[in-house]
Amino acid sequence: MRREAPIFQPRDPDYAERVRESFERQQAMALIGARILAVEPGFVEIELPWREDITQQHGYIHGGIVGMIADNAGGFAANSLVPADTSVLTVEYKLNLVAPAEGERLVACGEVVRPGRTLIVTRADVFAVKDGQWNLCATMQQTIMALAGKAERKA
Amino acid sequence: MRREAPIFQPRDPDYAERVRESFERQQAMALIGARILAVEPGFVEIELPWREDITQQHGYIHGGIVGMIADNAGGFAANSLVPADTSVLTVEYKLNLVAPAEGERLVACGEVVRPGRTLIVTRADVFAVKDGQWNLCATMQQTIMALAGKAERKA
Amino acid sequence: MRREAPIFQPRDPDYAERVRESFERQQAMALIGARILAVEPGFVEIELPWREDITQQHGYIHGGIVGMIADNAGGFAANSLVPADTSVLTVEYKLNLVAPAEGERLVACGEVVRPGRTLIVTRADVFAVKDGQWNLCATMQQTIMALAGKAERKA
Amino acid sequence: MRREAPIFQPRDPDYAERVRESFERQQAMALIGARILAVEPGFVEIELPWREDITQQHGYIHGGIVGMIADNAGGFAANSLVPADTSVLTVEYKLNLVAPAEGERLVACGEVVRPGRTLIVTRADVFAVKDGQWNLCATMQQTIMALAGKAERKA
Repeated sequence: MRREAPIFQPRDPDYAERVRESFERQQAMALIGARILAVEPGFVEIELPWREDITQQHGYIHGGIVGMIADNAGGFAANSLVPADTSVLTVEYKLNLVAPAEGERLVACGEVVRPGRTLIVTRADVFAVKDGQWNLCATMQQTIMALAGKAERKA
Repeated sequence: MRREAPIFQPRDPDYAERVRESFERQQAMALIGARILAVEPGFVEIELPWREDITQQHGYIHGGIVGMIADNAGGFAANSLVPADTSVLTVEYKLNLVAPAEGERLVACGEVVRPGRTLIVTRADVFAVKDGQWNLCATMQQTIMALAGKAERKA
Repeated sequence: MRREAPIFQPRDPDYAERVRESFERQQAMALIGARILAVEPGFVEIELPWREDITQQHGYIHGGIVGMIADNAGGFAANSLVPADTSVLTVEYKLNLVAPAEGERLVACGEVVRPGRTLIVTRADVFAVKDGQWNLCATMQQTIMALAGKAERKA
Repeated sequence: MRREAPIFQPRDPDYAERVRESFERQQAMALIGARILAVEPGFVEIELPWREDITQQHGYIHGGIVGMIADNAGGFAANSLVPADTSVLTVEYKLNLVAPAEGERLVACGEVVRPGRTLIVTRADVFAVKDGQWNLCATMQQTIMALAGKAERKA
């Protein structure tokens, strides 16, 4: 049996707006030029256009930058499922870099695998989009912690 | 028995210069303001001063940025042990974020655990330095691949 | 975009027999009572019936045993895609235990995510089957190495 | 700076006896023939003599069995630091297999890296002992959860 992507009910009706606002507060995402695309219950997409200043020594996007958007895609996917008064933090993640991050842009797709009350397990795939072709360049498995009663601070 | 930090003999006498040059070619490191400190056989330290534009929503340095310097510290530690005609790439890493990256600067210390011919296993600890105190904020385990006969391109 | 399960062409027409024979040579699988079920290109299922002597202190199947069959399901999924003269070994894996392994039996479903020439990235889900219900109890991400020209020894 | 092994104060004066009793309740450890050796605050050693029925297809101890004792060494190292009324469970672990598990016996050395209130990060090295020589065969990084107010059930 291959596991189906589960369908989740958000516990906060305003989850999408809350996730987008939280993303906007991360200056590190602005620094590298990342944007949030889709926000669905348990699923988030982040896009990152290629720029020379985010590359490594071979001209591809730096693996650490790939990790940043994978980590964030998984974290925000988890965030979309928690109540409004709850914030999330990354406990750990494991990332395999499977191909060079070569192309016009990257898209990181994060999804919740298992939404526990305290710990949420997620996964993310990062694709390098080149001439319209999506090539898997990284895949991640992650553990997120939900902190109840600790709404994120607003700027 | 607790494992001792092994002592390594570099196979390239100019390993330190080669590692520092490779670091300089990574524009992503310049973007976030990271500098390389110590380079020893199988051991590399990277420093990252706090700046507002690398923070997440709570004002701490972004976990993805922490991952970037951990990944790099481990990768360059591996790089210090390979022959001059060999380049390295990250196969995968696993990072635990154990405390907020709060302080004036971060220092990532990468070290080789097991130097195989093709695969090199490394580890890195990232410390947040606040008022002179070093606090562990992340710890990483990583697999690096050595590509023989593929010297890094020079700019 | 959610990644589709890829469709693989085996490079060894006798992959299924080769995988089943390799499984039979692992005495550790016999010790815990594991059986191989489906073998498809890039996909393998392993079943493990509950027995008291494979439990931990709470009466559930031991997490280490869950890890054994997850590791094996991913490894044999990779093995199904390599040429006949190639053997595989586990470089590393990362396993999240997401629920107690409680039920009549476990089923570990391993699948290839990315089949490189030297390194193969896989993933496995382990389900605890209780009263006919399949509950995810663990999920794994793994790196496998292919050793060309090293056919597995036969007993 | 290389991180020193920290020195921990146990919160349960009877931690050693509690850890040894918990180990004895794991039937899976008896099945494979594992014994607990040292139990110190934040540090546990587990020994596993070679036996044919725990091998894989090359005659070495099965990587999944190596994972079992690594997971357990880390988990019990964490267990040694929690209060008497608290039990622990493995959230996840990541294991690199760096050399064949070849020799007369294995020794897994688990140690706590960071003891949080809820989450405890550990690490374990597994050595294969052959003709008196200790060779690193696996290294692990792990996240453990402490469940306060849930003392382990006694048999």
